Amino acid sequence: MEKSLNEVPLYAGERVDDLLTQNLHIIQSPEVFSFSMDAVLLGRFASVPARGRVLDLCTGNGVIPLLLSTRTKAMIEGVEIQERLAGMAERSIAMNNLQDRIVIHNADLKGFHETAGHGMYDAVTVNPPYTALTGSDIKANMHEAIARHEIHCTLEDVVQACGKLVKQGGKVSMVHRPHRLADILTLMRKYRIEPKRIRFVHPRAGMEANMVLVEGLRDGKPEMRVMPPLIVYNEQGEYCEEIMTIYYGKPGGEA
Amino acid sequence: MEKSLNEVPLYAGERVDDLLTQNLHIIQSPEVFSFSMDAVLLGRFASVPARGRVLDLCTGNGVIPLLLSTRTKAMIEGVEIQERLAGMAERSIAMNNLQDRIVIHNADLKGFHETAGHGMYDAVTVNPPYTALTGSDIKANMHEAIARHEIHCTLEDVVQACGKLVKQGGKVSMVHRPHRLADILTLMRKYRIEPKRIRFVHPRAGMEANMVLVEGLRDGKPEMRVMPPLIVYNEQGEYCEEIMTIYYGKPGGEA
Repeated sequence: MEKSLNEVPLYAGERVDDLLTQNLHIIQSPEVFSFSMDAVLLGRFASVPARGRVLDLCTGNGVIPLLLSTRTKAMIEGVEIQERLAGMAERSIAMNNLQDRIVIHNADLKGFHETAGHGMYDAVTVNPPYTALTGSDIKANMHEAIARHEIHCTLEDVVQACGKLVKQGGKVSMVHRPHRLADILTLMRKYRIEPKRIRFVHPRAGMEANMVLVEGLRDGKPEMRVMPPLIVYNEQGEYCEEIMTIYYGKPGGEA
Repeated sequence: MEKSLNEVPLYAGERVDDLLTQNLHIIQSPEVFSFSMDAVLLGRFASVPARGRVLDLCTGNGVIPLLLSTRTKAMIEGVEIQERLAGMAERSIAMNNLQDRIVIHNADLKGFHETAGHGMYDAVTVNPPYTALTGSDIKANMHEAIARHEIHCTLEDVVQACGKLVKQGGKVSMVHRPHRLADILTLMRKYRIEPKRIRFVHPRAGMEANMVLVEGLRDGKPEMRVMPPLIVYNEQGEYCEEIMTIYYGKPGGEA
């Protein structure tokens, strides 16, 4: 029982990709922004309430709100500072006929609590820019650069915004690079998001982690769990079973 | 070319165990103190200088100094607050004829920098008590209880002592339980030991971590690595290859 897609305008260079779950589709552009595995893993890892309000910061083309819509009946909002990406996200939402469940705000996360209010969300997710800004890092593609580098917001801005927007007892989930782990955990504590659950992603069983998923609880008690490692490729260079399930399997579970 | 052991007195309940590397032996007592896998893994994980001075805090029966003596020509010192355990360690050292390379101090780590001096050690290792103290936790065996519970020192006391005793650019290595990870990393930062390398130990591939090895650099730059997961048992319930190598393989490498 496939849903039909609504027609929406596409701009030069854009294409429609299949999100491989519940016939969801998403507008991407190699020249502007395409989502990565990080977003897919966060979309599965994050604890989301069955109902209520969920917020995704740095939402890009809206991949995480789209994925979360398969796991919750909550109202989902996304915040994206770049007008071009926010527009892509809005058209993807319209294309999937999800306008009544997902709303995109073209806004800066740093001031967003002033309009949205303090502590109004049951859960906040974020796949922030990973890399500290250095002059030589800026790519030719400014949209990609803003999504990947700390141009408009630092890691501290992101964690601070999460702390302001999530309600007491609400969850904040983030995907990032392991080399920032000490920064992530100390900043979460600083903004009263107690780290509770962490999972490392390793390209292969014998390799260092290149991705980390972290979930914290606003005003939680200090005690955390380190989940089983998530290994991406097996010895034959194929996706491991769990990755296959996350990409192609049934929705609803948590990584 | 096995070395012969020196004769030392043994007390009631004590036995001599083989450390399975370079014919090292150690005095243990099920009723007083026996080392665990945690100590063996830390003894392999810790970066140690080829020469210089190494300090092991909460040294217990001296298992970590004995293991480290196979990996470095450095002078190794151990600090143990319990006279009974410090005595066991000293007899084990004499038994292995290592008195000129390992010295045990029966002292409290909290004031140890006052006698030893600030920043005098190239590397510090520690396998501290893991569990916060609650009344019901105290075991019948008080020696074991002091080694396992935060009776004489808290995690903060331990990290603070490490920060005072290690020299600038020196390394601090610790083994602990993953549920304290956020505490460990934030305390290391507080006492200027920047976390640089971390490894999680999982009983099996699909299980949560039950041990964490962390290494920090005094006044290091903030950027860290998460090593490949260390899995203890394979699907057949046997030790995995890396554990076999650590226990029975050639000394000298680092986990």
